[in-house]
Amino acid sequence: MITNLNGETLRFDRDENCLCILDQTKLPCEEKLLYLTSPEEIFDAIKLLKVRGAPAIGVAAAAGVAVIANNSKASDRTGFDREMEAAIKYLASSRPTAVNLFWALGRMKNIIDSNPSAGVEEIKKLLSDEAERMHAQDIEICRKIGENGAQLISDGDTVLTHCNAGRLATVKYGTALAPVYIAAEQGKSVKVFSDETRPLLQGARLTCWELVSAGIDTTVICDNMAASVMAKGMINAVFVGADRIAANYDTANKIGTYSVAVLAKHFGVPFYVCAPESTFDKSTPDGAGIPVEQRAGEEITEMWYEKRMAPDGVKTYNPAFDVTPHELITAFVTENGIIRP
Amino acid sequence: MITNLNGETLRFDRDENCLCILDQTKLPCEEKLLYLTSPEEIFDAIKLLKVRGAPAIGVAAAAGVAVIANNSKASDRTGFDREMEAAIKYLASSRPTAVNLFWALGRMKNIIDSNPSAGVEEIKKLLSDEAERMHAQDIEICRKIGENGAQLISDGDTVLTHCNAGRLATVKYGTALAPVYIAAEQGKSVKVFSDETRPLLQGARLTCWELVSAGIDTTVICDNMAASVMAKGMINAVFVGADRIAANYDTANKIGTYSVAVLAKHFGVPFYVCAPESTFDKSTPDGAGIPVEQRAGEEITEMWYEKRMAPDGVKTYNPAFDVTPHELITAFVTENGIIRP
Repeated sequence: MITNLNGETLRFDRDENCLCILDQTKLPCEEKLLYLTSPEEIFDAIKLLKVRGAPAIGVAAAAGVAVIANNSKASDRTGFDREMEAAIKYLASSRPTAVNLFWALGRMKNIIDSNPSAGVEEIKKLLSDEAERMHAQDIEICRKIGENGAQLISDGDTVLTHCNAGRLATVKYGTALAPVYIAAEQGKSVKVFSDETRPLLQGARLTCWELVSAGIDTTVICDNMAASVMAKGMINAVFVGADRIAANYDTANKIGTYSVAVLAKHFGVPFYVCAPESTFDKSTPDGAGIPVEQRAGEEITEMWYEKRMAPDGVKTYNPAFDVTPHELITAFVTENGIIRP
Repeated sequence: MITNLNGETLRFDRDENCLCILDQTKLPCEEKLLYLTSPEEIFDAIKLLKVRGAPAIGVAAAAGVAVIANNSKASDRTGFDREMEAAIKYLASSRPTAVNLFWALGRMKNIIDSNPSAGVEEIKKLLSDEAERMHAQDIEICRKIGENGAQLISDGDTVLTHCNAGRLATVKYGTALAPVYIAAEQGKSVKVFSDETRPLLQGARLTCWELVSAGIDTTVICDNMAASVMAKGMINAVFVGADRIAANYDTANKIGTYSVAVLAKHFGVPFYVCAPESTFDKSTPDGAGIPVEQRAGEEITEMWYEKRMAPDGVKTYNPAFDVTPHELITAFVTENGIIRP
């Protein structure tokens, strides 16, 4: 049984046939590992943000499919394939916006579809191999995003980020924070301002936790303070991740990203989106076609569901994401280089 | 003893010689009245935001001076004046940004200075009269701001506001929300989106409480959602208050106001600042000269000082206000009309 993820966010434990994840809803107060084996546990972990961040969701979902496959009692491919189709459809319904989820599930489905003559045990092995491959590839891709993005960071820079697109949003390194980690590895002095990112405070809880753990000089601000720090010239660049990038480069990311992009434009600060190629969705022509998840109003009106912050009778509007128009984005950083559309 | 403020935020109780306020730190969960008599109680109520909002702070400070004066044991004007000078200086040090505090204390000091031959009992009476006059004038001024600002609201409009510049920030009506109340009185249909306003959530706790209590259709959003709702065309105008307006019209107001102003400009939404003439500070040439209060980092990192939201070791940056450059402001609404600089 895994008792230490060694700086990674999740792992497919092939021996125990379970998906081990760091429960991100418990951070920064507690580092708790979860061992997921049933479809419902895996679905809930994604739905309830125990594992979150577009790339991490993809790798977790792929591992989830492998775990579910290995637990199948089906004796022939017809039964097995039917089970897996249902499982993949079920996991795909956990969250609507991040395209990596569908991309990862598509890769797993492709293993099944392209090996029609393999027996049940053989296809189980192929699915487990694919889940492990995606895990390793995610690490490699994020490392390359970091190397490419680090070119955009000068010694002494201060970077602003929103939400968490750090190592906790991937297997390791992160997307938006990978350039920060690599720049620090290269010996550059780099500081980070982290938007707290309401309502679920992924910036305060997750980004600050992983950066402080890594020894990076990190300052947390409320989301509404970004204009104030940019106006004072305290920010050299903005780095954020992405949940889905449409064909015209409109970019869905955590709610509030659009606001930061408008501010960056106003104050002349470069605004970079860091994401693997799997986040680019050529089948969605523009931002208007990206579905935006609406979440429960209690995330805003109640303090971790413990204490009321807004009165009874108030309405809420709680989109989980917004879509930043491409013209506000200076460049995209991927594993293959820097794209300036 | 006062047991009901009848829809007002505070009252100078001349019979009991105390300042009665609604404790705003307890809202929206509890409506608790406080009865303040000592300089320390009055200072703390302002410092700890039990009474807040630039105009309300002014009226409260004036009443506080009257209460302290009436408690003076001085037998002659020399001793009395020395006591009052110290009390006024003490109350002036409670918060640095809102100019109304200094303006109100200046009015009280002027009563003392301009009546050198009055006896101690007579000057006490004059100070109490002045405190009552400022209370009544605040109501009248806010009513006029509402009448002037209501011209800017059309039937069916949705207004966005930030922080609380409603009746709770004044004696009654408010500044930014006065136009909403008057427009509703005039039979116009008007809806409000309220930024929750981190870190202390005056929007969620106070603005939503007073608007919902008044039967206004109110939706709370996190501060970072303003771009999203403006991009969808859901907002017709922004109304905010002000803590100090410099001679060139640069405007200090609750942290996050600057961000909303940049967004409003980007999306072509008119941005109105509502404030009494006493908020205009001709002696400060521009925004660079307005001191901005920095508050404790725990307001960001801890959940009402109960639960940690950001990890140990993270730095904080927590300005209470920002200064919006005048070129982002469409117009100012005062008791004397609409100013378009």
